[in-house]
Amino acid sequence: MNPPESITLQDCQRQDAQDPLRHLRAQFVLPDGVIYLDGNSLGAMPHSAAARVSNAVSQEWGQGLIRSWNTAGWADLPQRLGDKIASLIGASPGTVVATDSTSVNLFKVLSAALHINTQDAPARRVVLSERSNFPTDLYIAEALCTQHGYRLLLVDAAELDSSLNEEVAVLLLTHVNYRTGAMFDMAAVTAAAHRVGALAVWDLAHSAGAVELKLEADQADFAVGCGYKFLNGGPGAPAFVWVHPKHVNRFWQPLAGWWGHAAPFAFTPEYRPAPGIARYLCGTQPILSMTALDCGLDSVLAAAGAVAGQDAMAALRHKSLALTDLFITLINQRCAGHGLELVTPLPHVQRGSQVSLSRSSGAYAIMQALIARGVIGDFRAGDGAAYPDILRFGFTPLYCRYEDAWHAVEHLLQVLVSGEWQRPEFMRKHAVT
Amino acid sequence: MNPPESITLQDCQRQDAQDPLRHLRAQFVLPDGVIYLDGNSLGAMPHSAAARVSNAVSQEWGQGLIRSWNTAGWADLPQRLGDKIASLIGASPGTVVATDSTSVNLFKVLSAALHINTQDAPARRVVLSERSNFPTDLYIAEALCTQHGYRLLLVDAAELDSSLNEEVAVLLLTHVNYRTGAMFDMAAVTAAAHRVGALAVWDLAHSAGAVELKLEADQADFAVGCGYKFLNGGPGAPAFVWVHPKHVNRFWQPLAGWWGHAAPFAFTPEYRPAPGIARYLCGTQPILSMTALDCGLDSVLAAAGAVAGQDAMAALRHKSLALTDLFITLINQRCAGHGLELVTPLPHVQRGSQVSLSRSSGAYAIMQALIARGVIGDFRAGDGAAYPDILRFGFTPLYCRYEDAWHAVEHLLQVLVSGEWQRPEFMRKHAVT
Repeated sequence: MNPPESITLQDCQRQDAQDPLRHLRAQFVLPDGVIYLDGNSLGAMPHSAAARVSNAVSQEWGQGLIRSWNTAGWADLPQRLGDKIASLIGASPGTVVATDSTSVNLFKVLSAALHINTQDAPARRVVLSERSNFPTDLYIAEALCTQHGYRLLLVDAAELDSSLNEEVAVLLLTHVNYRTGAMFDMAAVTAAAHRVGALAVWDLAHSAGAVELKLEADQADFAVGCGYKFLNGGPGAPAFVWVHPKHVNRFWQPLAGWWGHAAPFAFTPEYRPAPGIARYLCGTQPILSMTALDCGLDSVLAAAGAVAGQDAMAALRHKSLALTDLFITLINQRCAGHGLELVTPLPHVQRGSQVSLSRSSGAYAIMQALIARGVIGDFRAGDGAAYPDILRFGFTPLYCRYEDAWHAVEHLLQVLVSGEWQRPEFMRKHAVT
Repeated sequence: MNPPESITLQDCQRQDAQDPLRHLRAQFVLPDGVIYLDGNSLGAMPHSAAARVSNAVSQEWGQGLIRSWNTAGWADLPQRLGDKIASLIGASPGTVVATDSTSVNLFKVLSAALHINTQDAPARRVVLSERSNFPTDLYIAEALCTQHGYRLLLVDAAELDSSLNEEVAVLLLTHVNYRTGAMFDMAAVTAAAHRVGALAVWDLAHSAGAVELKLEADQADFAVGCGYKFLNGGPGAPAFVWVHPKHVNRFWQPLAGWWGHAAPFAFTPEYRPAPGIARYLCGTQPILSMTALDCGLDSVLAAAGAVAGQDAMAALRHKSLALTDLFITLINQRCAGHGLELVTPLPHVQRGSQVSLSRSSGAYAIMQALIARGVIGDFRAGDGAAYPDILRFGFTPLYCRYEDAWHAVEHLLQVLVSGEWQRPEFMRKHAVT
């Protein structure tokens, strides 16, 4: 790469031409005129999903009817998709199921973690988390803490280390922060939790499919994650849940529905949990959405073998960092003096697959003006105090190009220089997701 | 109708020709050579689902991407579908949401019922249910009872009345029994529960879309139900949850995820429940499966207006009873002496929309032989003691014809007379759903 001060569009296009993953973009539908930098909120659609979901509707449901539970393999989709996810997050086959939502799955694993704590260390009464953790995680934790007589302690990331003590039963963290894109060192933080005797529960919503994960090697205790972000599973795709094998058979979890039963179709009145991760299933799963998730997982697994000696996630992570490095450099180079501040950490080991920028005013309107130009990122409101308003730009290495980073920054520059973001239609807030 | 002893195929076809709902069958894909009597397990596919789901994949997801949360109305699907369901179950608009699975929703409402009991009558420590209730309901109840120090008391249906006393906090019942097709009198049973001060929680899995329901008029307290049976929502379609307006704002529920928050996109660290039924939402919903459910609900609502003076469910219930009456009569008339016993109650007020038959031996193989002939019902294993093996025949009045009842009985007779069910391929049990 040329020195930062001289990066040109042609440089970016040259990087694209040399990118060993460039062929993977063809897997996706990407609308004309759109530069999509919001795959961290909803991943783009793999072409395969159209045919696969259509087949699931018209053939499997329409023609196969109830028989498709066996003939189309609906019954073990949670396990089959779970095994694909396992290979992307450093987990063994048979230790992950795809099911329910991230929030529901967090309820399951946090319930299990508290139960194990009650058995092993009942005096510990604190669940520790980060104040800027994704709110649904905090809501679920709050509900369970209230119910079981625990205290939910929320601190800033910098205070986590000093807050870890022998009162802490569970450390609950999202691996990559949804606002800032800051990433924890899973091995180090988990080890710190274990040193004081606490369990580590990880939310991988912004990690799975985006960064390399080694759940088992890092000795994490429980994890949940999202199917519709970097795993490209479609809107509201089922989430996933992983439990370390050493814990999985110690307890089940209170959402003890029939699909987690050892013999669901024996229809016995007493609950008997299935061995292993299947006990984290509850009810019947949404098969059409599961089918789309399967296509999304295949789109990520397609990165395997693209770079000699690298598995899918190693190759994707390498490109993800190159993309966010480039975007940060271009912002620094071209948008200086326009009040943008980089929120995402610069060190690679602390960065997920997004770049977050703050500005003392206008962040919402600037993002609306960018979206009107076809550059789709998103806006996350600050709290007016500790957390600023944020412009989020997510980079999914499967389909984002170096050229996209260049054009996104060019549009951002034009929006800032022209002042077009101050038009009334961009200033007016409406519901955002 | 002619006297039972003389019913002919022509009689059945005449009934079809005079059926004011006969045009509704054209809404559905029904494979050639199949008589589908398993809509109580998975409803048939409305033709509209192919185009609607395909559009949700390729246009809403593929082209609209994240913008579709607003532009395609994804964000309020739980409420919009909930309102359609409300109109089918005797509930007011704004009191139902479509979301999650039946098991997960039961966990929510039973948690809320126990919480309300703790406030109002903490001395009550029993959750009463029917021993032959659908097992997942019992598993969820067992988990919550263990957690909160309640006792789960399971009795036979005939003992419910005498078991209702002032120790009972919650009466938890499935309105139509999945095995027998027996239906409770919701108004009378709810009143009996209320007389002793207990709350009534109803599972409508085999009722919604099949029988008339008047949740509000019958003063039920909580209800959940299934989207993929008589509501034709597709495999694993999201379920629904209803809470009586007098209870809904008294408590939230422990699956307190961001979609149940008063302001989900304010991203505040503290949970503040949304007013009304929205607080029974938890995480992001599977949009593709929700879209198919929308088609299923429309297929049921299409019955409105078909019979002057009758709403959709009144018209459908009338035909449902005529179908099950006919099937029972034909079984009695044509299959006498073959060891079949009617398990489903004869009185209309005690019958759902299915007919269950038992036989001292061979029930599994007989159903397999029927399925091989294209007559798709299903088998439910007994417990070898109180409950016999059961052949289930579900009648969805939207697409089942009187002629179908005749042909199904004719095939059953041939299977029994020929003894073909004793072939090895039918005797061998495999996984069934």
